[in-house]
Amino acid sequence: MTLYFIGLGLSDEKDISVKGLEAVERCGAVYLEHYTSVLNCAKQDLEKFYGKRVILATRALVEQDAEATILKDAAEKDTAFLVIGDPFCATTHVDLYLRARKAGIACRIIHNASVISAVGVTGLQVYKFGKTTSIPFSNEQVDSPYEAMKENRKMGMHTLFLLDLDPIEGRYMAVGDAIRYLLRAALRKGDGGFKDSTLCVGCARLGAKDQIIKAGSASQLLKADFGKPVHCLIVPGQLHFVEEEALTLWKKENIQ
Amino acid sequence: MTLYFIGLGLSDEKDISVKGLEAVERCGAVYLEHYTSVLNCAKQDLEKFYGKRVILATRALVEQDAEATILKDAAEKDTAFLVIGDPFCATTHVDLYLRARKAGIACRIIHNASVISAVGVTGLQVYKFGKTTSIPFSNEQVDSPYEAMKENRKMGMHTLFLLDLDPIEGRYMAVGDAIRYLLRAALRKGDGGFKDSTLCVGCARLGAKDQIIKAGSASQLLKADFGKPVHCLIVPGQLHFVEEEALTLWKKENIQ
Repeated sequence: MTLYFIGLGLSDEKDISVKGLEAVERCGAVYLEHYTSVLNCAKQDLEKFYGKRVILATRALVEQDAEATILKDAAEKDTAFLVIGDPFCATTHVDLYLRARKAGIACRIIHNASVISAVGVTGLQVYKFGKTTSIPFSNEQVDSPYEAMKENRKMGMHTLFLLDLDPIEGRYMAVGDAIRYLLRAALRKGDGGFKDSTLCVGCARLGAKDQIIKAGSASQLLKADFGKPVHCLIVPGQLHFVEEEALTLWKKENIQ
Repeated sequence: MTLYFIGLGLSDEKDISVKGLEAVERCGAVYLEHYTSVLNCAKQDLEKFYGKRVILATRALVEQDAEATILKDAAEKDTAFLVIGDPFCATTHVDLYLRARKAGIACRIIHNASVISAVGVTGLQVYKFGKTTSIPFSNEQVDSPYEAMKENRKMGMHTLFLLDLDPIEGRYMAVGDAIRYLLRAALRKGDGGFKDSTLCVGCARLGAKDQIIKAGSASQLLKADFGKPVHCLIVPGQLHFVEEEALTLWKKENIQ
């Protein structure tokens, strides 16, 4: 019996790999993690595509009840744990993997696209991204995402901000929320580490057919509409000329 | 007519996404980039799986002759440009994309797994990786990979080293070569930034069924056998306790 950690990639039911789909077809139980991100399709689309029932796994199920659900199933039959993006970008899934291994369950990982490398589509060099940071909904007194950006920029590196989300409540942070957080953090710190004029790149639904990428100053992007989730924000560090050229593409086309 | 940039993921013909495979099936010409990485399967395996001829694209073809080959094809018929990993992790592919857009060719990107996020399988947090750096074959006087690691570690961040390769000559840098480079660079600099006792994580064939992950001191890993390419090396920064626990797994199991 094997527990498969299968990445679903970024957008819809067809972003799963052929290998991942074959594994799902072998499995007697299929769980979909439903708390670190969301796809642009519904659970029903996955079920129709796989011809199988998919069980939504909340954070509580994975972190507190895995022994009685996922790990119990995996001890009895091949079981799939579907993860949006690449399986081990979130610590919570690494933790499930470690618990499965400790319980003597064979594990197999089937990788897929992650926002971490998909941001390369902006033309910003993936290798020049520093520490990735997340902005939580309650951020009035939170400094760490702002500080991470300042540290990264000091070394010329880009910063990717992942934005908080709550699929159960249908609550998603937008590019504008992230920019407002950074402006407020800079004011609070009084060090001018982020301004109205700071160059930003906002992305929505990366990997989807209707993805939006816009580059411009913080105040320009505050006025832009990025539409449905999931959004993320990039604050570039030092730019190589190929990166500058690529960003021009997203400025010309998208900012009014 | 569309030029598809399609990620193939990390290991073999079945790591392509369902969406990517459907796009390949629509295409009248299929190119495979053959200079930034290699799969664990042959071009013939891809051809058999797609039922199509696949053209190997060298660096010279992509960077100098794209107008007469890839871009010419893409102006006439749907064309696939297959990239190992995720399409835009390498600047050379971003450049091809920019040229295609300038030539008025519609482009579509189909993402896939990259080593950048797949390293999460080690248990090291993907978000805590700093700048990624590459070690070239000729590295006697090259300081930048060593310096990048020192900068990352100063901020507690992990460093991923990608290792040089030449698929045409069949030449691939191994984990041991990378460690020897770092030991030499530290000696040359005389700053003790890397030692025999420095904790390292070596990976080979990430994403493949026979992948190897080993954690240990530099001198332990120098003695370890990682087998066939592609290898990469990680020098961890500050460790969280879940990261420490995960690394124990790769120490216990793999180091004699």
